[in-house]
Amino acid sequence: MAVPRITIREAGSHTGQTVEIAGWLYNLRKSGKIVFPLVRDGTGIIQCVAVKSALPEAVFDELKGLTQESSLIVTGQLRAEERAPGGVELDVQGVQVVQRVPESDPYPITPKEHGVDFLMDHRHLWIRSRRQHAILRIRHEIIRAIRDYFDCNGFTLVDTPIFTPAACEGTTTLFECNYFDDEKVYLTQSGQLYNEATAMAFGKVYTFGPTFRAEKSKTRRHLTEFWMVEPEMAYATLEDVKRVAEELIVFVVRRVLENRRPELTTLERDLSKLEAIQAPFPRISYDEAVSRLQAKGSQIQWGGDFGGTDETLLSEDFDRPVMVDRYPAQVKAFYFQPDPDRPDVVLGVDVLAPEGYGEIIGGGQRIHDYDLLVKRIEEHNLPREAFDWYLDLRKYGSVPHAGFGMGVERCVAWICGLEHVRETIAFPRMLYRTTP
Amino acid sequence: MAVPRITIREAGSHTGQTVEIAGWLYNLRKSGKIVFPLVRDGTGIIQCVAVKSALPEAVFDELKGLTQESSLIVTGQLRAEERAPGGVELDVQGVQVVQRVPESDPYPITPKEHGVDFLMDHRHLWIRSRRQHAILRIRHEIIRAIRDYFDCNGFTLVDTPIFTPAACEGTTTLFECNYFDDEKVYLTQSGQLYNEATAMAFGKVYTFGPTFRAEKSKTRRHLTEFWMVEPEMAYATLEDVKRVAEELIVFVVRRVLENRRPELTTLERDLSKLEAIQAPFPRISYDEAVSRLQAKGSQIQWGGDFGGTDETLLSEDFDRPVMVDRYPAQVKAFYFQPDPDRPDVVLGVDVLAPEGYGEIIGGGQRIHDYDLLVKRIEEHNLPREAFDWYLDLRKYGSVPHAGFGMGVERCVAWICGLEHVRETIAFPRMLYRTTP
Repeated sequence: MAVPRITIREAGSHTGQTVEIAGWLYNLRKSGKIVFPLVRDGTGIIQCVAVKSALPEAVFDELKGLTQESSLIVTGQLRAEERAPGGVELDVQGVQVVQRVPESDPYPITPKEHGVDFLMDHRHLWIRSRRQHAILRIRHEIIRAIRDYFDCNGFTLVDTPIFTPAACEGTTTLFECNYFDDEKVYLTQSGQLYNEATAMAFGKVYTFGPTFRAEKSKTRRHLTEFWMVEPEMAYATLEDVKRVAEELIVFVVRRVLENRRPELTTLERDLSKLEAIQAPFPRISYDEAVSRLQAKGSQIQWGGDFGGTDETLLSEDFDRPVMVDRYPAQVKAFYFQPDPDRPDVVLGVDVLAPEGYGEIIGGGQRIHDYDLLVKRIEEHNLPREAFDWYLDLRKYGSVPHAGFGMGVERCVAWICGLEHVRETIAFPRMLYRTTP
Repeated sequence: MAVPRITIREAGSHTGQTVEIAGWLYNLRKSGKIVFPLVRDGTGIIQCVAVKSALPEAVFDELKGLTQESSLIVTGQLRAEERAPGGVELDVQGVQVVQRVPESDPYPITPKEHGVDFLMDHRHLWIRSRRQHAILRIRHEIIRAIRDYFDCNGFTLVDTPIFTPAACEGTTTLFECNYFDDEKVYLTQSGQLYNEATAMAFGKVYTFGPTFRAEKSKTRRHLTEFWMVEPEMAYATLEDVKRVAEELIVFVVRRVLENRRPELTTLERDLSKLEAIQAPFPRISYDEAVSRLQAKGSQIQWGGDFGGTDETLLSEDFDRPVMVDRYPAQVKAFYFQPDPDRPDVVLGVDVLAPEGYGEIIGGGQRIHDYDLLVKRIEEHNLPREAFDWYLDLRKYGSVPHAGFGMGVERCVAWICGLEHVRETIAFPRMLYRTTP
């Protein structure tokens, strides 16, 4: 009978059985006549035990001299071992080396410390390391949780286009792309305007895809290519945005805690900080935020936008995300609905992550009145004809509507507790980084 | 007590209750002293019944004269009605018109026939119509099913980059984008090369995002921006690709049949054609495909690639997708693994949808030998240095691996039975179409 091939994730339910595991040599510890190969297969890492006396000499010697990241198929019996991660070890009975990494050209990433540039240049290999692996698994869980939240709450996924025709909000942060016959198109910065059209067709929608910003910022919070989820709801207000944003974040954090606890532990994440993420989130106004910041020594004046430092200062006061609403109209985009009681502020809200991770959500209620929207487009010196289709939405069955955008990479950075967003995506694109 | 607001999708479980529905006037039928407004809210369409004698005169008159796509909130009692779609109608008690579309500037898409260009120019409104709505709901179901299949079968989602540095497979079908400081980047055509890196880190992976091809083709099968899902598996062969492709397609079609039957019916899709999509799919070789085509009168010669007409001819013989494998090396990309028994053909497979919908999946086994891959890169006159990182994967723990790509829009076109891919996505991008 053929030996069954299993993944390391499944090993715990096969104790006592002889199995085959196909993977790579993560590390090798030697102790006299026993070697302990650590084998990874993408689903986990298992410690194997190879005893010289129990194996043909050639097999033992090959294993003993095997180099890091060589690919191999090990056969052996699984044994419960409380002290092992995953609760199981494999007693080696046979080894087939698939490809041996030569000593003359060893795997470049060793357990010693490497500089960030070196690691980023070897990103295609770096993702094999335990820490990067854990981050990207958590990223997958976050994305899956986001989609599940919207799919299970009556939202229809409607993908909005990447190629957009006009330079809607100024060209300075847009990537320009050559289309056919010298036509220029721009890469989307947000699907929101299109979401407003699809929300009128489907009621509640979301779009989820890559977005692009040509910002010349070299900060730990900026990528030029990043993923964003953007829900939009017809017949909805600022209060609906706050409710959905809160529900979404609580749902996502809980799912990561449920399903990715080992990975969080690998990252040495303080779980108590994530366990504190429960509704209700604190809600403060922009006015109050300014007062709080001034009391903390910030130079911010009413009417100004918050910088990264302000966001960090504000989030210090809370153990969960804080919602700041009713920003001055001048710091927000042209389409924000003014507060009817106080037209100098708009019905917008930002959600700031705790622990200094800054804005993870921005959104609010959109202008639904045709004349007011035309006025705003003119005030912002935007090309009216580019917005004809967008204005149509206010002519043919306009309704109050609202939505938001949540940046995936900033969420991943926060939930994983990372210093820099460059580790939140497999192949990050930044101001000076477009490879590998 | 406030009247509860419900969605039309929920109406069936609220019969006998007085509820509020917020939506748009889809159509209005009048019959003497009764009007029958058809109201849509994005989740469905409900017939309402407004009786003149039961309503204040002003309310009845407003409703009677209401224009298509005006937004309104209707209040009334739900009544079971077997003949109604959804099994329920609403007896109107009150109406609040949110925005009335003026008679002087009516909703441009009327029940009469419009030309395709007109409809595409009004795509932001066209998506409200019953047929387009059904297509995009099925698209969502297909995407969700694809993700569920991979998420539940041990694949890790690893998003690959949109910005790619080098022109890997020739620049003719690549979109060029201006990065910073006169640097050029290209928009991804496929995440596969990156998938090969992530598969070595995670074992089984998939990427799912927009991809771009600057093809000057104006056919019913081509978009310049389209979504693709691409799984990749380490320690896998051509046979694994066929198995996973077959499982995936069967799973997706079954889910659409389970959850989107009303939408398929709206599209007048022949359900028996979809119900026939069961494993096993027929598997033929390229050689056999050529013989079959020649017998049908095609001019194809051994060594040539299939055109759209050939694909249609081939698919005619089968009631389910057909898998064609072992293509001549010269028609496939540089990275395909040669068949060890017959090096003039490669271990690649295409899956052709039934009913003439053409190729929906292409994939196969990749070269895992370093020297052979170097040779192929040279033979194809590709810039070696751009592939250094890709070659690394053959130096550090290379293993046999395989994967494929499936185009979402072609799947949607096939499953929905559409003439043209332009209806498979909310805002299609084609050779002469980048708006709205």
